[in-house]
This record gives sequence, structure tokens and C-alpha cells, in this order.
Amino acid sequence: MTAMPDLLGEAFERIQDEVDSAFDAFLPVPDDTRARLVEAMRYAAIGAGKRIRPLLLVATSELFGVNRNAAINAGCAVEAIHAYSLIHDDLPCMDDDDLRHGKPTVHKAFDEATAVLAGDSLHALAFDILTQPDTSTDPFVRAELVATLARASGHDGMAGGQMMDIVSEQEDYDLRQITRLQQLKTGALLAASVEMGLVLGRVPPEGRTHLRAYARDIGLAFQIADDLLDVEGDEEKAGKALRKDDGQGKQTFVTLMGADQARAQATMLVEQAGRHLSGHGEDARLLVELANFIVKRDH
Amino acid sequence: MTAMPDLLGEAFERIQDEVDSAFDAFLPVPDDTRARLVEAMRYAAIGAGKRIRPLLLVATSELFGVNRNAAINAGCAVEAIHAYSLIHDDLPCMDDDDLRHGKPTVHKAFDEATAVLAGDSLHALAFDILTQPDTSTDPFVRAELVATLARASGHDGMAGGQMMDIVSEQEDYDLRQITRLQQLKTGALLAASVEMGLVLGRVPPEGRTHLRAYARDIGLAFQIADDLLDVEGDEEKAGKALRKDDGQGKQTFVTLMGADQARAQATMLVEQAGRHLSGHGEDARLLVELANFIVKRDH
Repeated sequence: MTAMPDLLGEAFERIQDEVDSAFDAFLPVPDDTRARLVEAMRYAAIGAGKRIRPLLLVATSELFGVNRNAAINAGCAVEAIHAYSLIHDDLPCMDDDDLRHGKPTVHKAFDEATAVLAGDSLHALAFDILTQPDTSTDPFVRAELVATLARASGHDGMAGGQMMDIVSEQEDYDLRQITRLQQLKTGALLAASVEMGLVLGRVPPEGRTHLRAYARDIGLAFQIADDLLDVEGDEEKAGKALRKDDGQGKQTFVTLMGADQARAQATMLVEQAGRHLSGHGEDARLLVELANFIVKRDH
Repeated sequence: MTAMPDLLGEAFERIQDEVDSAFDAFLPVPDDTRARLVEAMRYAAIGAGKRIRPLLLVATSELFGVNRNAAINAGCAVEAIHAYSLIHDDLPCMDDDDLRHGKPTVHKAFDEATAVLAGDSLHALAFDILTQPDTSTDPFVRAELVATLARASGHDGMAGGQMMDIVSEQEDYDLRQITRLQQLKTGALLAASVEMGLVLGRVPPEGRTHLRAYARDIGLAFQIADDLLDVEGDEEKAGKALRKDDGQGKQTFVTLMGADQARAQATMLVEQAGRHLSGHGEDARLLVELANFIVKRDH
């Protein structure tokens, strides 16, 4: 781990504990042969990942005084979608990866059929969580959370970006197409995390502009940093296979811009993201530090 | 096709057209490399299947005067979940089927990665549809529709039943376990179809008892009929491979009860289902005929 300022380090520790506890409560192991499925869901959802998306959601919602438990619930829903997408991405017919978060991928630890079903079940769990009254007592808020997350994860969002990514192995994309691909594949769920914080905070559309701009900038910066990590990162710290883009001859921000320009672009985006939040002053410090972490992380 | 009374035959024809048109509108093919994904979703969702679940939902909602377009939207959401589950079930790592609705399965017509993503995208589309104001102007109804469908499709519903089904190849289930498996795998989504009709109709919990009992009975009858068709059916009419249960040595209602007793049980359940609706008189004729169709269908 890089040395993180205390505020961010403590925020990560706290939210990792909270998200783990919430998933533990959402997923009791049943006393029948579904146990294998729920064990696989728990394996993927508990104790894994940095929880960047839940932290984005909670930190956004705190600007508007949202109850923290409600925001943690919504954060778990986003994380359930993220976790399902990693399980399916790692399948042999997709990226065929053996390692994720430093441990065997779900289809390696269990089997492929269980991995498909565990991903599908985490997908359904996300929407189950969002419709629980604990997430919001206002049904309008619950329905808007579902709408935001469903659109961000389907063919007009994350899954659409993954399709573009697969096709990119056969086609040479230009920078415009790579940007669009990444806006969908990674950016949509990061943007949804911020948006769901705004929905929970009942922020009217005209008050959302600057946080949406922040989300757009960090989404792109996140993917540029990921491409840089794929080239320059340490596999042990990453807990997964790296340098796969190169082996597949895929275009990335780094192949198209070069590493130096990509790094400069990511830094510029993060500075710009911070400026969008200037109206919130010190209250937005966590979101500003999170933006910086996104480009400076080493895994 | 067996000869069907006009009421049911016309109801099927009408809803098949309506569901196809709705999916056509929900899924315009984008002008970028996501086109392949949306084509695969359309391939699975349009012109395929009898639409039993949407018909159950619409026929239930009509007992309570629900706007038909709203009910068709909700029916498309259930059908999107059903379609995604078939795509994933047919994958090589699951049932490894080449044929569905008389045409190549999605992973055969496209490829496995596209099939995984098309399933995932239809899954997300279901919840996207349910949160659109066209489905209900009341956000409480929208949120309840999502809650009902999410719970019926995840680890406590359909996906849980699929896991139990996979495990059943290794373990000898008794009749109680087979019943539980089928209540989840098939019954949960059929019951959700009826329940969503009740949600749209704003029927209070105490008014739902008889329709829930109807749904439970036809869910079980449906699966017994499926097991009988697997043994006795015509592959050409079914449009998919049959006699797979036997090859895998799996216990089914037919292996456990014998074909004659299974048939008698299904008939008894359907008669019982009809009696639950007697309070609705002639208004419930379509639901009664649908229950009869479920055991008498030849595909």
C-alpha cells in the first residue's frame, strides 16, 4: 500500500468493515444444497476489493446529510454489481483469469456453473437490497436507486462497455472509441455510485451538475490509471494477472497516448475533478483525496 | 399445437405480439460495437417462447382493472429474467444445450462471451423496465415490483433452484427436496408473475391469498408436466433436446412417482388451482384455462 493520508486510510478501513458486515448479514448460508451457491457469493463479496464504489457513494451522500446505514446499503448494492461483473469477467469464455484479489477466482475455487449462478445471484441481490425500506423509507428514492443502477450496469452501461472491450481485440479503436468504451465499462458504475449518493440526498437535478462532472473525470482517470498499472504494476500487489492488454494487442489509453502523456492526462483529470467540488470546501476533502488515490494507487 | 379454446389461443397470440413489440422498442440496435450485444439480446427476447409468465401477469392484473400497457411492461420484465436464465442455463458449463425454441442457442448463434453478457444485460433490463414511469406512475408500485422480481430470481428463488438442480446430479433427492427445488427453480418466477399482477392492482395482502394459492399449484403442476414432457414429449415440437434428465440419472417427479401418478398429481393440482379462483367467476376464465394448458401442453 502507498502511504495514504489518515482521513482516506481510515475511511477505507471503516467502509471495508461496514460492507463486509452488511454482506455477512445479507447472505446467511442456508441449510440446504443452495449452501454452495451462497458460499460462492460470500467468497466473492466479503473481504475482497478496496470498496472504492461504496466509499464514493457514502462520501457523496454525506455531503447531503444522508443516514450512513442507508448509504452503506446502497453501497453494497453497487458493490454486488461490481462483484458479479468480476466473477463473469474472469470466466474461461471471457478473460479466463485464475486470480482475483490475490485468491483463486470463483470458477477456480468452486466451478464454472457455480460461478455463473453466483454472479447472477449477486446481480439480483443488488436490486433486492435497494428495495428494502432500510435503504430508504421513501419508495421514490428506492425506485430511483434501482433505475440508476440498472441503467448503469446493462447494455447502455457496464455490460455494453464489456462487449466493446471484447470486440476491441479484433478492431483498432481510436481514442474517441476507447474513451466511450471506458466511460461505459468502468465509468458508468463509478458515476452511478455518485449519482446514487445524490438520489439518497434528494438533490434536485440542477444541484447535481458539479458532482456529475467530478464523477466523469475520476471515471476516466481511473481507467487511465488502470491501463498504466497493467503496464507498470506489480502483479503481487494487484492480486491478479497483469500485462494482458499487451498480449492481446488491444488498444488502451497507454498504447494510444504513451505512458507519459497518459499519466499527465490522469493527473489533469483529477485536478479538474477536485475543482468541481470547490463549492463544498472542506466537506468534500474525502472525495478530493479519493480522486487523488485513484491515480496514485499501486493496485 | 394442441387445439386450444379460442379465448386462450387468442390471448396467447395477442400477448406474443405485444411482448415482441415492447422488446423491439426497448432494444434499438446501437450504432457502435455494442450492436452485437443488443442483437444477441433481441435474438433471445423477441419471437421466442410461449409468454406464459407475461400472460399470467396480465391476466391476474386484469382482474383488478390494471392498465394493459403497464402490465405488458411488467410482463416483459419477467420475460427478460426468464430469457436471461435460459441463455445462461444453455451455456456449455451449465446444461450445454445447442437448441432452444427450435433455433440455435445464443452461445451457438453468437459466442459464449456474448451469451454471458446478453444474459447479464437482459437481467439488468428487467429492472430498468420496472422503474420506468410507463410501468406505474406510483413509485411505491415500481419499488414493490422490483422487490418481488429480484427476490424471485436470486439465491432465494430461481438461481437457488438451479443450484439445487445441479447438485441433484450428485445427490439422491427425495420428493420433499425435489418439490423444494422446483418451487424455487420454476415456481418462484411463475408465482412472481401473479404477485406482480397483484402489486400492479394494489391488492392488499389479505386479498392475495387465493391467487397466491393458485400460483403455487400451477407452479408445481408446470414442473410435473415438464418432467412428463421430458420423458414422453416430441423433440421437434419442444424445439429443444429432451430426455436429458434420464441420461444424467437425475431424480424428477416422474422417476420418484411414476408417470401415471405424476400425471394424476398434475391434474389434481390444476383442478385445485381453478377452485382457488371460484370467487372471481367468469372473470377468471383465462387464468383457469391457462392452468389447464400448463398440464395439457405438448411443448
